Amino acid sequence: MAELILALDVIERKRALDVAKSCTPYLDKIKVGYPLVLASSLNIVNELKPLGIPLIADFKVADIPNTNGLICNLVFEIGFDAVIVHGFPGADAVKACVDVAHRFGGECYVVAEMSHTGANEFFSGVSDRITLIAMQCGAEGIIAPATRPDRITHLRTIVGSKKIYAPGIGVQGGEIEKVAPLVDGIIVGRMIYNAPNPSEIAKHLAKIY
Amino acid sequence: MAELILALDVIERKRALDVAKSCTPYLDKIKVGYPLVLASSLNIVNELKPLGIPLIADFKVADIPNTNGLICNLVFEIGFDAVIVHGFPGADAVKACVDVAHRFGGECYVVAEMSHTGANEFFSGVSDRITLIAMQCGAEGIIAPATRPDRITHLRTIVGSKKIYAPGIGVQGGEIEKVAPLVDGIIVGRMIYNAPNPSEIAKHLAKIY
Repeated sequence: MAELILALDVIERKRALDVAKSCTPYLDKIKVGYPLVLASSLNIVNELKPLGIPLIADFKVADIPNTNGLICNLVFEIGFDAVIVHGFPGADAVKACVDVAHRFGGECYVVAEMSHTGANEFFSGVSDRITLIAMQCGAEGIIAPATRPDRITHLRTIVGSKKIYAPGIGVQGGEIEKVAPLVDGIIVGRMIYNAPNPSEIAKHLAKIY
Repeated sequence: MAELILALDVIERKRALDVAKSCTPYLDKIKVGYPLVLASSLNIVNELKPLGIPLIADFKVADIPNTNGLICNLVFEIGFDAVIVHGFPGADAVKACVDVAHRFGGECYVVAEMSHTGANEFFSGVSDRITLIAMQCGAEGIIAPATRPDRITHLRTIVGSKKIYAPGIGVQGGEIEKVAPLVDGIIVGRMIYNAPNPSEIAKHLAKIY
């Protein structure tokens, strides 16, 4: 059964907290990105922590190793449980993130492939190698798009029992019934937080996948 | 004459503001990255604004187009004058950033190549294409490493009169006297802010390049 991860891409602090709170009983994890953090500050973590489920910083960290380390330090110091980073900047950049994550007892996931059209330009050709680097660096898993289940099946042959989390369900076109059996977690954003009753959708998804 | 851009990669808010203030008379721009913003919140911009020189958000934005747009909106709403984004997520991701930047009358720069060892794994082979995408999307220029002046000379043939800003001077090994004549701006961080007297170094660099 796949974990259900809420992509809390809501910019308004109050609405974000309301959605998170109402959905928490049906969630395994909450993923927070830069839009919410920039709009409200990193302290949003202190307001989400009491919900008691793991928080993932989806910062797609993509700088030089030294700066990546600084960013990840701040991520885990404030209380995140995991971070999502880019593999495109290479093994040393990924390793800098994994090292910090593990020092805090946290997890690190690497973006192996993305779901938008532009990802075809550079990502598609190198996602196998990025996945390999993620594994060699000791990352806990990869992020791969629900819009491309064939690619997920292929990347599974590289990651083995490590985790695959898949965003792109719903609005972006990923079909949950096809993808859920292939991955360790499905990441759902707009389908939940833009619904008239977010917790109802979360409850429904949690029950069937 | 190349612009002098301070990379304000100092995490402590007070020290960052002190360094920025003392160096401002000799600077053309200040570049702020995620470590400082995460440690202090996006409001650090409101404290740097009164210095009266352009502020660049070096966020190396690298998400899907929708999220990139949200991040850039927050960047320019708070008062940044320019943003640095990644080109490897493809043209649509870059275009989303450029569009927001221009709507605010701001600028967008694309990372064409990076200065660390890991950049050899994926970046080096595609930096020409990334640079081309940056130009096609209407970006104001690119970021290319001072550690590779031969690459800067080559990328100049693609960007023409658009700007090239080069980080990696000093600690990372870039030789300022070789690079300054090739670029529109040199980005200097540790060499200035880790000096016993940062403003003295900034003054010296501003005078000779």
